[in-house]
Amino acid sequence: MSGWLAVAGLGPGDAALVTPEVSAALAEATDAVGYGPYVARVPARDGLARHASDNRVERDRAAHALEMAAAGRRVVVVSSGDPGVFAMAAAVFEVLEDGPAAWRDLDIRVLPGITAMLAAAARVGAPLGHDFCAINLSDNLKPWALIERRLRLAAEADFAMAFYNPRSKARPEGFARALDVLREACGDGRPMIFARAVTTPDEAIRVVPLPEARPEMADMRTVVLLGSSRTRILARPGAPLLYTPRSAPA
Amino acid sequence: MSGWLAVAGLGPGDAALVTPEVSAALAEATDAVGYGPYVARVPARDGLARHASDNRVERDRAAHALEMAAAGRRVVVVSSGDPGVFAMAAAVFEVLEDGPAAWRDLDIRVLPGITAMLAAAARVGAPLGHDFCAINLSDNLKPWALIERRLRLAAEADFAMAFYNPRSKARPEGFARALDVLREACGDGRPMIFARAVTTPDEAIRVVPLPEARPEMADMRTVVLLGSSRTRILARPGAPLLYTPRSAPA
Repeated sequence: MSGWLAVAGLGPGDAALVTPEVSAALAEATDAVGYGPYVARVPARDGLARHASDNRVERDRAAHALEMAAAGRRVVVVSSGDPGVFAMAAAVFEVLEDGPAAWRDLDIRVLPGITAMLAAAARVGAPLGHDFCAINLSDNLKPWALIERRLRLAAEADFAMAFYNPRSKARPEGFARALDVLREACGDGRPMIFARAVTTPDEAIRVVPLPEARPEMADMRTVVLLGSSRTRILARPGAPLLYTPRSAPA
Repeated sequence: MSGWLAVAGLGPGDAALVTPEVSAALAEATDAVGYGPYVARVPARDGLARHASDNRVERDRAAHALEMAAAGRRVVVVSSGDPGVFAMAAAVFEVLEDGPAAWRDLDIRVLPGITAMLAAAARVGAPLGHDFCAINLSDNLKPWALIERRLRLAAEADFAMAFYNPRSKARPEGFARALDVLREACGDGRPMIFARAVTTPDEAIRVVPLPEARPEMADMRTVVLLGSSRTRILARPGAPLLYTPRSAPA
């Protein structure tokens, strides 16, 4: 009996964006572990125990998964999107580093998924088609001053930007401050894309010029993209297309 | 007869990382268009014409695809990885913007894929588990001075970094200059990951401290990752695990 642990990305929501690799791991698993809404996306079947937990208990969840794998079970920790992008993989490795030495012998794999920013970008065109950065706007685990410094440097670099966790009930003010910093650092010329629940039945996408962006346009299910100074908007029937050209002047 | 154009990502190489959405589009297509090695990854079948073209003719390829879709064909432009990340989607929209007005009425979709940096990150752990940026190191379409400025700002922001197109036969010197800038701007403490042909039978992954990185460790098939100052290396049997913790000090 030989256990293993896979940290797998379910993609943004649509089952057609779950990779065959992840589906195969789930088909072999004895246990699926994760935040409730993500575990609910794993089809129930005989022989698979689904362990749903609350948000914000990432370390407990990771420890539970590692313990089960060490006991010989075949465990998949599920994340939305890609597990390596502001999701469960880093949490698992944090707990692994602090845990029993024997855990380091475990068979552990990370199975990539379609992360929210790439699904959102695809929906509107190719706004991340040139150099870009991804920033988690939650200040649960890092100081606001660091977030602000990164926003200013990213603006100076003229990166397109993707923002994860822009806003939650516990942090209603942070995104307003981020928008203030961005307006000051980026000027008026960039479009902002609010992509909520992308690829799900609740999908809602809104494109506004940065000066018109408002904090309440984002919630916990929203990923926010900001174009670079070079991002183009192509008007056409229906929604416009946004893309950032491959070339850039000096 | 109603044509359409899908710009689809085939992922990094392994067929188990092609999304069902992309497979479904290819199953309905009359034409697959792309760089030779990528078109070769599309299974041949009756009713599907495969149009392989050389590297560096992205605009010609995009125009051909748009023309065929406008003529009523069902066309998939294939990219490796994700089409929106340093791949064909931006090229298609550049050509669309410059082309006949009627092209804007076309049914055009972008179908995301697993981009190389996320596949490479998954192979070694979660080095992109905190804020990060993605930079195309090719200076074909942007000046070297801009690349250098972005590298310095990204280092100052303490982003983990992913580098696409680090080196080609036509540009043997650029990556050596990038390494010089990074060593100067980042100091000695960060690990660099060279991930060649990730998820293919030719996969080769090498982790070295930044001071030991050499230009010849990368080629056209390599994506290069650089940890942040906080990236951890967990020794264990076999290859080490690398991850960037979710938390950061001020």
